[in-house]
Amino acid sequence: MGRIKVCDAQSLSGSPQAQKAVEMTYSMMKLYCDTVYLQECMVPHWVRGEKETARITGTKKGNINVNILALGGSIATPDKGITAEVIMITDFNELEKLGEKKIKGKIIFYNHPFNNANINTFKSYGECVEYRWAGPARAAKLGAVATVVRSMTGTIDEYPHTGSMRYDSAGIKIPCAAIATRDAELLINILKTEGKATLFMKMNCQTLPDEKSFNVIGEIRGSVNPDQIILVGGHLDSWDVGEGAHDDGAGVVQSMEALRLFKASGIRPKHTLRAVLFMNEENGLRGGTKYAEVVKSKNEKHLAAIETDAGGFTPHGFGMDITDTQFQKATGWAPLLLGFGLHELSRGGGGADIGPLKKQEVPLFGLHPDSQRYFDFHHTNADVFEAVNKRELELGGAAIAALMYLIDNYGW
Amino acid sequence: MGRIKVCDAQSLSGSPQAQKAVEMTYSMMKLYCDTVYLQECMVPHWVRGEKETARITGTKKGNINVNILALGGSIATPDKGITAEVIMITDFNELEKLGEKKIKGKIIFYNHPFNNANINTFKSYGECVEYRWAGPARAAKLGAVATVVRSMTGTIDEYPHTGSMRYDSAGIKIPCAAIATRDAELLINILKTEGKATLFMKMNCQTLPDEKSFNVIGEIRGSVNPDQIILVGGHLDSWDVGEGAHDDGAGVVQSMEALRLFKASGIRPKHTLRAVLFMNEENGLRGGTKYAEVVKSKNEKHLAAIETDAGGFTPHGFGMDITDTQFQKATGWAPLLLGFGLHELSRGGGGADIGPLKKQEVPLFGLHPDSQRYFDFHHTNADVFEAVNKRELELGGAAIAALMYLIDNYGW
Repeated sequence: MGRIKVCDAQSLSGSPQAQKAVEMTYSMMKLYCDTVYLQECMVPHWVRGEKETARITGTKKGNINVNILALGGSIATPDKGITAEVIMITDFNELEKLGEKKIKGKIIFYNHPFNNANINTFKSYGECVEYRWAGPARAAKLGAVATVVRSMTGTIDEYPHTGSMRYDSAGIKIPCAAIATRDAELLINILKTEGKATLFMKMNCQTLPDEKSFNVIGEIRGSVNPDQIILVGGHLDSWDVGEGAHDDGAGVVQSMEALRLFKASGIRPKHTLRAVLFMNEENGLRGGTKYAEVVKSKNEKHLAAIETDAGGFTPHGFGMDITDTQFQKATGWAPLLLGFGLHELSRGGGGADIGPLKKQEVPLFGLHPDSQRYFDFHHTNADVFEAVNKRELELGGAAIAALMYLIDNYGW
Repeated sequence: MGRIKVCDAQSLSGSPQAQKAVEMTYSMMKLYCDTVYLQECMVPHWVRGEKETARITGTKKGNINVNILALGGSIATPDKGITAEVIMITDFNELEKLGEKKIKGKIIFYNHPFNNANINTFKSYGECVEYRWAGPARAAKLGAVATVVRSMTGTIDEYPHTGSMRYDSAGIKIPCAAIATRDAELLINILKTEGKATLFMKMNCQTLPDEKSFNVIGEIRGSVNPDQIILVGGHLDSWDVGEGAHDDGAGVVQSMEALRLFKASGIRPKHTLRAVLFMNEENGLRGGTKYAEVVKSKNEKHLAAIETDAGGFTPHGFGMDITDTQFQKATGWAPLLLGFGLHELSRGGGGADIGPLKKQEVPLFGLHPDSQRYFDFHHTNADVFEAVNKRELELGGAAIAALMYLIDNYGW
């Protein structure tokens, strides 16, 4: 399946590497799909520039370098960097309470903890992510000059976790970054022991004009109802750090693999199986949005859309955003799915890329793998090929193929 | 919890490192147990000696080095090594069919495949392990001069997987080793393309006199029925390659951790909680045997014995070797255990160390973690600290503590 190369080629929307990923997956699906085509969409093109630098300055131990990564979409600092006092904030209530008077001119350090007591790590992520996404705009509104956010992971290590954010369209833009948990702890300690802390940060990221890019779509044509589609997809773009091996190289490989398994098994589906490798999930969702627009304009009928974008770990089940009747049907397949280790068939689910299809009442499914290790890697330099276990990855692909088979043969 | 040091200190029974592991875990449990004591047992003392060497000789490409590890308990080759023609065998039927005439003077290569179609990898291991355990004796009986067994893993890599074997007490002893799957594939290929293959192997392992060693036992005394024991255990010895981090550093840490969690939570158990760190699971089971003897002689009452010896991966459930009534009770706790991700409460289970307690009708439980990655590491140089994920390990410890709590409060 050429997995190594797929993962290597993954990168941020608009980059030459993302274009290579388009070309490579197109060629790969040509090997076993009846039809492969590209679906054009315009994508944002943000570039990180030189490696960011940051240090806590003037501590009793002198200046201490810390690891940060600019958040995707952030503006640069001035060339000489920004130096300002750090104000630590646990949540937005605290921010509002401090108000403009205490925030103005400061760097806001969002230190909302990642709750390790949640067995499902995505729940903990969900509790933190707003501080990355909306934190910069909210701090800017009160006069902050920059923000750093505690990286969204339950581990304490040296990797900053980047990710998307959004400025208020009418508001002031300030530079924003994520800081490694190890360094967040260091900063907390200095604030505690020295009473205050000053941070220097320098980043020269920028947003270039939008680029043309593509969703890559492969199909195995249905023998009975070719106009009815069972979709599986992941996203082809990734953050520019690491290799995007779990996020979402794994999902891309599993989507292609699910179709390949039908071909290799000699099973001709009754409905059309379609793998969609979406572009730009990470910082714009332009691929997913475009896909749903085309579906609507062509009035295409989808029996299901299944997303795999939660890492290439042992599959545990599917989350399902479907009707009661469909859920009753799907949970009836539980004994068949259990053979693949799938024991969690739950309500709610789907995924970002297929989300826009909800308006058209497409039944949405999301693969739920074991979540314990995901946030060790998510959006970091550690998300590399070696972090993916081949067998766990393959099991996920097989699990998806099993669900597609059941929908194809016994679906609604 | 000092996990790094525990794992580093793990080693084969009778070694100085195994003695260090005894001393260190004794000290660690002293920190939160009411009682910690050592239980003496005599253990075998096998040593590997110098690194084994092996090569396929006289191929069209010349001599090709291959990776082998002597099986634990193997005798050495003569100083100059052994060179002989290789006969590949898939199963014992094939061996018997060839008979003494074709086996005599040869090196038998047991190439029973590890079935990757089993979702539970322990099933595949179970299908292969007899070729490691009994293969040498059966080949020796027919005049073979040595055996190599395909390493018991579904991956193709450079790591040989050692493990235990047994000679017939009355039979001839021949040197025996495991060969890395990568090199097994190479050997198969040479046999196929060149019609025959010759292997050179040299090992200078030996069995020294038995050594004195210990099970390490820590207890938190029960407040209501201190004479009734709930046991959790793993094994303190490991193979001499790697660090034994998953097998069974993880089980040792989880056993200690389960008791520590009670202490840290301020929960005083009604019955006595006992962590037993067994010595010599890998090549003799002397610790487990000794423990059961003492239990019998003291007429100690065990409510349950729980073993954790399947790797420090995300816990999936427990296997239970218990009565129907007990099973009905335990499965009634399913909704409570599901919170820890435990979804498989199945019949059959336990573990090697607690196995000897079965005669005394002790209810036996075995922790079942996710098995996908276990045989990437099992009995190899790859089983090191870094291969264990902290969060997955901790979840297993918490899962065991939860089961102990339920038995303590609502048990039979």
